Amino acid sequence: MIAPITPVTPITPALDPPYHAVIFTSRRTSITQDYDPLAETMLAFAARQPGYLGVDSVRDPASGTGITVSYWRDEAAIAAWRRDADHRLAQQSGRAKFYENFTVHIAHVTRSYDFQRDEAL
Amino acid sequence: MIAPITPVTPITPALDPPYHAVIFTSRRTSITQDYDPLAETMLAFAARQPGYLGVDSVRDPASGTGITVSYWRDEAAIAAWRRDADHRLAQQSGRAKFYENFTVHIAHVTRSYDFQRDEAL
Repeated sequence: MIAPITPVTPITPALDPPYHAVIFTSRRTSITQDYDPLAETMLAFAARQPGYLGVDSVRDPASGTGITVSYWRDEAAIAAWRRDADHRLAQQSGRAKFYENFTVHIAHVTRSYDFQRDEAL
Repeated sequence: MIAPITPVTPITPALDPPYHAVIFTSRRTSITQDYDPLAETMLAFAARQPGYLGVDSVRDPASGTGITVSYWRDEAAIAAWRRDADHRLAQQSGRAKFYENFTVHIAHVTRSYDFQRDEAL
């Protein structure tokens, strides 16, 4: 049993460009069995990968729509993680079980900034 | 009153690179008044902008964490929208009212693909 990791809070801060982002936007099927451990395993694999910088992941339970963005120092790190991720997905009866549909955008981040609310407000 | 638009379902499909993505990851404050009309206005402004390609937006009501990714043909379109968006935010008492914190990543998308589940499964 892999302990859950908590990628959502706090959100990933601004990073020093250049770096890369993998945007994974998905709609889940109604099949919940075995999904959470798989998702946790995939994120744990990502976090162990050289070149991993962070991940933000949000799913709206009502609509089943989710966005996960992972951040990487270089494309080699993304490729290595994808090989692992594909392997795990295959072991778990395949993506078709868990996803109605998804889109992946792989991008080169050129600029980043963040905002923190003044507590005095 | 601007009618709500529904950016979440269906999710934006794979697009022809190159294009650009603005990843906006945020944690909301507990202030809800006036937020939804503002968010809808911002998205409606985006959709009217030349070079706009699409948006995906998800927020987990429980954690208050959200990710919105907008897609654009070129950087000029992003710049024009940001000017509008900043203007609207300023009119609505500012970002500090609605966001505890947020991070923006501006990226150049080089690859995109999608998956649609086979209905027969």
